[in-house]
This record gives sequence, structure tokens and C-alpha cells, in this order.
Amino acid sequence: MALISPSRRLRRTPFSDGVEAAGVKAYTVYNHMLLPTVFRSVEEDYHHLKQAVQVWDVACERQVELRGPDAGRLVQLLTPRDLRPMLPGQCYYVPIVDETGGMLNDPVAVKLAEDRWWISIADSDLLYWIKGLAYGYRLDVLVDEPDVSPLAVQGPRADDLMAAVFGDAVRDIRFFRFAHLDFQGHDVVVARSGYSKQGGFEIYVEGSDLGMPLWNALMEAGKTMDVHAGCPNLIERIESGLLSYGNDMTDDNTPHECGLGKFCNTQTAIGCIGRDALLRVAKEGPVKQIRAIAIDGPPVPLWDRWWPLLAGTTPVGRVSSAAWSPDFGTNVAIGMVRMTHWDDGTELTVQAPDGLRHATVKETFWN
Amino acid sequence: MALISPSRRLRRTPFSDGVEAAGVKAYTVYNHMLLPTVFRSVEEDYHHLKQAVQVWDVACERQVELRGPDAGRLVQLLTPRDLRPMLPGQCYYVPIVDETGGMLNDPVAVKLAEDRWWISIADSDLLYWIKGLAYGYRLDVLVDEPDVSPLAVQGPRADDLMAAVFGDAVRDIRFFRFAHLDFQGHDVVVARSGYSKQGGFEIYVEGSDLGMPLWNALMEAGKTMDVHAGCPNLIERIESGLLSYGNDMTDDNTPHECGLGKFCNTQTAIGCIGRDALLRVAKEGPVKQIRAIAIDGPPVPLWDRWWPLLAGTTPVGRVSSAAWSPDFGTNVAIGMVRMTHWDDGTELTVQAPDGLRHATVKETFWN
Repeated sequence: MALISPSRRLRRTPFSDGVEAAGVKAYTVYNHMLLPTVFRSVEEDYHHLKQAVQVWDVACERQVELRGPDAGRLVQLLTPRDLRPMLPGQCYYVPIVDETGGMLNDPVAVKLAEDRWWISIADSDLLYWIKGLAYGYRLDVLVDEPDVSPLAVQGPRADDLMAAVFGDAVRDIRFFRFAHLDFQGHDVVVARSGYSKQGGFEIYVEGSDLGMPLWNALMEAGKTMDVHAGCPNLIERIESGLLSYGNDMTDDNTPHECGLGKFCNTQTAIGCIGRDALLRVAKEGPVKQIRAIAIDGPPVPLWDRWWPLLAGTTPVGRVSSAAWSPDFGTNVAIGMVRMTHWDDGTELTVQAPDGLRHATVKETFWN
Repeated sequence: MALISPSRRLRRTPFSDGVEAAGVKAYTVYNHMLLPTVFRSVEEDYHHLKQAVQVWDVACERQVELRGPDAGRLVQLLTPRDLRPMLPGQCYYVPIVDETGGMLNDPVAVKLAEDRWWISIADSDLLYWIKGLAYGYRLDVLVDEPDVSPLAVQGPRADDLMAAVFGDAVRDIRFFRFAHLDFQGHDVVVARSGYSKQGGFEIYVEGSDLGMPLWNALMEAGKTMDVHAGCPNLIERIESGLLSYGNDMTDDNTPHECGLGKFCNTQTAIGCIGRDALLRVAKEGPVKQIRAIAIDGPPVPLWDRWWPLLAGTTPVGRVSSAAWSPDFGTNVAIGMVRMTHWDDGTELTVQAPDGLRHATVKETFWN
């Protein structure tokens, strides 16, 4: 791995002191912010995430706040998902597309009130797209990046740890719902959500003063639960089929190609940008799509380029994320495969940096 | 320094193979791309840049291309700089602001033709802002990120090296002008520009096939000129007062605060976004502004947070970039200082991570 130079442009978070004290080993950069990638080792973090509970600094999931009479109209403009059934207190995963149907981000929208939303973003400056549209359409809405930093608590013991800090009310929060809870006299939004399939919560921390007190309270309360600092885990997220914007999809891809067609209500999401393009895609179907791919052989290396997928010598797709899975005893991967070769069980060749390997398309992800 | 995990989300460039072969020691991430920060050492790179010639992978200066009948109108919408005098073949440094006059980016606009522009961006997804506006205004213009990667040649011997590869025509290119030149049968745009004050060029390389042939041709031709791989140098850019978006300024700052008032023709740049807010600022002047700051004491550490500037115990600003300058025998810094304390020679205290230090506001930068 290479070194990263310290820079004020790559922002610290309210939890950085805790992350450093916990012995973070490596970072990535996400929304101009440092995001930890390894604490003990990717494999050790993986086993621990599936068995215990971790606290993750995901402050880099920046919010775009929309506030004002036109906030709801603007959110519906952004996404082909029909938001009419959505109530305050709910979170929706919302593909965001441009006028050609190309993915610009895949955030979670948090509906705080009819006229106040947070869009919890993946790695692109979605703020700029939303501000540009709001200005161009002359909408009556304020759009900015509030000083809100999510802290995630993930793992099978997440409910117990959160209950120890926030009380048993957290146990009643349903999946992709949120509640306002108290921490040391401050109102915080706590959602049952997160970038793993091990269960857990995301706490939206406003300002920076509350960051380390909350981090420390979770670490203290979790001592008997084997709590540890963690981070989104490459192996677990691939096993779970959790996509990464910029890795597994770019603005070249439609939601349908990303397997997100179920979040596109193109017929009813009237007024959304990209509707014309997506109606066409919805009718004909995509010609390539995200698939789970099992890759044979020894553990694949961490890498920084897509790997071509071949049928014989014909390119039929690419692998965009891959890692060795100790639990499943194979290399798990996410790829985009042409429809001619996307059926379950199709055998392909992947051009990995250490040579050609045998790969198999799978119907479903592992977790 | 911390480690950075390899990721497909942090894109390689057409020159990455050359950068690695040249022994890059550290990176930063800029526009979702790897940008080298150190080859031999920051100090050694600095001395060499001022004496010889370097080839820089600045592919991370991504382009936003505007093409179509409304391209010119859209560019003028983006910036308070009056673009009417600008001719095809010219480059302009253009502050980009939102409706409140807050800086969104500080790119160089390249006017290829009346209906075709490249905006060569600093570290934020300006593409999203421009696309959002184009869509909101229903302008007749295509906006996208073309596959164009700048390669910079910087240093006092840049003219000689470029002439050896492109012929003597490069010597006639004036500052912030460009020409179309031939490289191995391909037309490339070559501008006299770059992120140093040592002189030089930026070559806009289309596609990825030409990247390594061009890198290798420059390295081969420069053997007798002590050419070396380099990168934007922290010390040299501070000495030269070259600002870094995200470090020295954010969307909280107006161009006037950044000392970029001379690029704002707010009276005549009719139709630009943020005009109302900036007319107010232009009339009253900013209450804080970018200044050169000399910091006493031994070499300051590389750091990732702003340092408070104090007059006695009163906060009057911040230091946003700082480094030890071997040539000037002091720590050189860029800061934002309140008008009460921004006069040349004002003595302040800077709260550095290793303690309080004496600092002096300077009228001008060092280079």
C-alpha cells in the first residue's frame, strides 16, 4: 500500500481522535474526508464484525440538507423512486440519475419532515447537482451540507450496545426507520441502517463537540461485548452485495444495470429527471447487469483497476470488487456482465493481475 | 504518514505506470484520482523544480467539457469574470461561485472554440453543478467529463524540454494561451500554464493510449536536462501564493476573501450566478482575506487541520497551508486574516500543534 500525505483538504472527522487511538492501519478518501479501511486486518475486522459489534466513523457519508416548501418536490425530481408513500421517520435508498439515466450517486434519503430532508451521500459531490437544479428551477428550498457526521454501530450485538447507551427504545426502531433519541441532553437522529448486512444503526451526530463523548460512551458501554473500532469491510460488503459508487458503478450505468430497477418506479415517479431515458430501459431491460461472481484460486490481491471478464477470448464484462472470503472459502466478487452470459452458473474467465482465473456467475450474493 | 488502501474508486491515470516506475513515495486524492505528492522528498523535489524541469501527472485536473450553442452563455453564468474579451486559444483563471458568492471551485477555463470549452477543475465535482444548471435552465449544451488527462512540464528548463519533443513552436505560446501541436500523429492541446511559478506547460492528453508514450518521450528527451518525475510542490506553491481549493478556501469564502477580486468583473459580467451577493461584497470589501504569513521557529510539521491565528488571545484568522522554505529560511504560510490585522507587518501568534509561535503578516508572497 502507498502512503497518503496529510492535507487539510482531506478532512478529519469528529471521531478522528478515537479512530487514531484505536490504531487505524489504513484509510481511503471519501467525499473529501478520511474513511478508515483497516484496523487489525481486513480479515480480522471481518470475523469480528460478524461475531460482535463495531463502531464505525462514517462521517464521510456527508448530508445534503434540503429545507423549505419545495424540498419534497426537489427530492422527487432527483430520483426515479416514487416517494409518495414515504413518511417522516423513514429512510429510502434512492438511486440518483442524470437526464440520461446515468447514476450520479446512490444515497439514503432521510425524511425528517415534509419540508426537511437529509440525503446521506456516497462518494460524489451530490450537493453541487442538487444546488444547480434548485437554482436552475428557481425552487423555494435551501440546499447545503450541514455539519452532521454519521457514526455507525454494526454487528450482531449492535442492539445490545445501543440499548446500553440510548436505552431500550432503540430496539423498537424498525429497519430503515429512525427515531429522535437523547444523548447527554442532545437530540440525535438514530436510524436502523448501515453499510453491512450484520444489522445495526447509524447515529447522525450534529456538530463536532458530541463526537468523542459519543465514541467514548459506546466504547465504554461495549467493553463486555467485545466492541472494537471498525469500518465498512471489503469482504463483508461484497458477500452482501452492497455496491460501492465509483467502484461497481459510475455515471455510465443506469440503475437497472446496477440491479436497482426495483427502486425505480418510472411510471409513477412523475417529474423525475431521467424518466424518459429510464422508461426506455425499463421497457427493454438492461443489456448488462451487476452479478455476484465467484473467482477460483488463491486469495486475489487488493487492486485498483477493473478486471476484464471473458467468455473464451470475448470480453463480456468486468469485475469491479473482489476479495477472499474466509467464510465461503472462495474469492467473492461483484461484476457487470452482459446478458448473453449473466445466467446463474455461467462459467467465465477473469483476467486478474496474476493471470487468468476461472469464475462463475451466481444468482445471488452470499449474505 | 498513513497508508491508503488501493481502490478502483480512486482512479489511476494514463501516466500511473510512469509515476510508479519513477518511485513515487506518497499520494493525495484529488477528484477521485491519485495525485503524487512526493518523489524523492518534498525538499529535494522543491530544489529540483526550481533548477531543472519536471514532468507532473496532473490527470486529476479533470475537464468538464461544454459543447453546443449555449456553451458560452453557460460559462458566463458560472463565473463573475467577464469573458467577453476571451478569444479561442486563451485560458482564463475563473472563480466559480454559487448564488451566495461562495467559491465552488477555481478552475482554468480553456476556450477551444466559441461553442466548445474545457473547464480544468480543482478538487470538487464541478461537473455536477454545471450539469444541474444546464438542465435547470434547459440550455442547448452537452456537459460531460471527457477522457482528457493533463500532463504538466514545469521548471526553468521546461521550454527546452518541450521544444525537444514538440518542436520550437512551443516557445511561441504565450502565457495562458494554447496551441494545437502534433505528437506522434495526434493533435494535442498544449498550454503555457501550470501550478507553479517556475514556468512551463500543460499538455491535454486525450484518451489513455498516448499517456505513456508521451511520458517516455519527455523522460528520454530530458535526460541531458536532469528531467525528473515531479508533482505540485507544497513549499513552492505556498511561496508562490498558489491557492488550493479545500485547503485555503471553501464554499464559505467569496472570491474577494481569497484575493481573487481582480478576477471578478461583477459590474459587467451580466447574468453570472452570485452577482447580487458579490456586488455587495465588491462595494463594501471583504472583512477577511488571504494573506502570506511568515511563521517563526523550526520547520512546521505537515498537518491536517487549520491553525488558529491569534492577536493576543483573540482569534483573528487561520493558517490553511504551511511549510518550511529552505530558500527563504522561514516557514511560509497561507492564511485568512481579519481586516483588523491583515496589514503588512502585523505580528500575530499562530497556534501550531507543537505550541504557540510568532507569525508576521506579509504584503506579498515570496515567489
